[in-house]
Amino acid sequence: MNIAVVGTSSVGTAIVKKAHEHGHTVTAFGDADGAFVDTDGIDVANAVENRESRDLSGTDPLEVALDASYDVLIEATPTSVGHSQPGYEHVRAAFKRDRDVVLVNKGLLAERYRDLRQLEEDSLGELRFEATVVGTIPVMTTIQDLDPTTISAVRGIFNGPSNFILTRMATEGLNYESVLAEVQELGIADADPTFDVDGIDAALQCVIVANVLEEGNSEYTLDDAAVEGIADLPGSALDLAVGDGRTIRLVGEVSDDQIRVGPRLIPEQSSLAVSGTDNIVQLETKHAGRLNISGRGADISTTATAALMDVSRLS
Amino acid sequence: MNIAVVGTSSVGTAIVKKAHEHGHTVTAFGDADGAFVDTDGIDVANAVENRESRDLSGTDPLEVALDASYDVLIEATPTSVGHSQPGYEHVRAAFKRDRDVVLVNKGLLAERYRDLRQLEEDSLGELRFEATVVGTIPVMTTIQDLDPTTISAVRGIFNGPSNFILTRMATEGLNYESVLAEVQELGIADADPTFDVDGIDAALQCVIVANVLEEGNSEYTLDDAAVEGIADLPGSALDLAVGDGRTIRLVGEVSDDQIRVGPRLIPEQSSLAVSGTDNIVQLETKHAGRLNISGRGADISTTATAALMDVSRLS
Repeated sequence: MNIAVVGTSSVGTAIVKKAHEHGHTVTAFGDADGAFVDTDGIDVANAVENRESRDLSGTDPLEVALDASYDVLIEATPTSVGHSQPGYEHVRAAFKRDRDVVLVNKGLLAERYRDLRQLEEDSLGELRFEATVVGTIPVMTTIQDLDPTTISAVRGIFNGPSNFILTRMATEGLNYESVLAEVQELGIADADPTFDVDGIDAALQCVIVANVLEEGNSEYTLDDAAVEGIADLPGSALDLAVGDGRTIRLVGEVSDDQIRVGPRLIPEQSSLAVSGTDNIVQLETKHAGRLNISGRGADISTTATAALMDVSRLS
Repeated sequence: MNIAVVGTSSVGTAIVKKAHEHGHTVTAFGDADGAFVDTDGIDVANAVENRESRDLSGTDPLEVALDASYDVLIEATPTSVGHSQPGYEHVRAAFKRDRDVVLVNKGLLAERYRDLRQLEEDSLGELRFEATVVGTIPVMTTIQDLDPTTISAVRGIFNGPSNFILTRMATEGLNYESVLAEVQELGIADADPTFDVDGIDAALQCVIVANVLEEGNSEYTLDDAAVEGIADLPGSALDLAVGDGRTIRLVGEVSDDQIRVGPRLIPEQSSLAVSGTDNIVQLETKHAGRLNISGRGADISTTATAALMDVSRLS
């Protein structure tokens, strides 16, 4: 497939670098600062180098990228909370041209779910967003396969960095601050880790799941989620839990029309107690009982891969 | 959808009883001894009662059922090893009429994979068989979604009764014979448990998975599997494992063109160490790393449900 990638941060760049490996060709890549466009496939190495060195010579305006020849637009502008632009306009432009859209930006999806579905409905294009929820773990595909109306609850570990921190605190008896410094050094958490440790990232994913389960009957945004992070969790709480055969995890949950994210005490043997940066999602289903799907949590590389897998699902 | 159910053992009967709950209508139900056929939907209660009391009055020959009005044929004759009749003829009859086919009989599928795919290719009908591998856990759907050619290995716990036995032996320090008696009393294992405890059931599922991964490039049957069961496992082996933070599970594995089933020593914390009758399948994928899918293991009820979920996937 020919793809246009809008968004040049780390995930957008990773998508462009990996596209060929998945059998796809990047015909446009850029953002508001300028874009590389070539019907035969852009020179990826050159484009990535130019973006990294902030050399925008030889680029076209973003409008040219949005008008370029592509089958699928990947919307990969950075996730932000509280406003859905310019991502929303990129999606609108693609659907208007009856192109398919793959979303990476979870803020946009959590904020404007119903509007995006409406744009999709008015278009011949299709919307996919597996990359927005636990990266390459195929949760959205599984929910669609089982039929969202037969799923009564979803809970899980949706964020890798916070799970890594809690795992290290529990196994090494360390306090929050020292583990946070460690994960920042390892590049697992950003310099500004609030998005992960305050539960916002997990909450956005739960909002997306809640909207999918509702199938448009009602609409959720981040304001509907009760969110608590792990930054105030004392190391002593984890020590107490471990001594009792339990542990603490940042659990996200969608059930009974409620969205909740917060630290929860769970048995160490529980399937929810995945380790390190792993993620898990548990589905309570009408026909198949409780299903667990787990694997690597999302990072820059897996998020890019998840978006490209969505492109492959469209072909 | 209108469905014809061929096979009147416990699973066939459970399918007929549950069909309505999934929004489907049974228009034919029977086996070589006779069949109930009604274009408007058979009288399920009456048919089930007649079969259970072995009262075949008022039934038609099976040929009438195979010629009846239906969208999907569910082949639910009992799994047998070493011969694929009469199941194969039932599938052939349905595909010849361009109907879809849902398989429950794993022996038939493991024995004649390529032939069945050929029948499907020559027909407008579609073949589905999620129910043959770990029941309602959507492993086949996930493998198809990810693309079988991108999966390098599959391993897991494919059999509930043997896993229940091993779990009880490990946690209670009991020996094999006493736990086997218990599971037979609970109805978890059949009076003849060899199919479960000798690893045949797990091996058939691995053969099916291996054929799906090969996509017809080569064909596997049960003869290609190295199979070892758990009947000779001394309780002392489990005690030793547990003392060392490990446990023993009957693991099935497809990798490097090999199919192996046998008791394996694994860490107690391993995701493979599911408890009781639960099952898990681990996929080693090119793009998404290691994915785990787990849930309830197959029994009569979940197998019937899995077959009906496959019918829903066709509609």
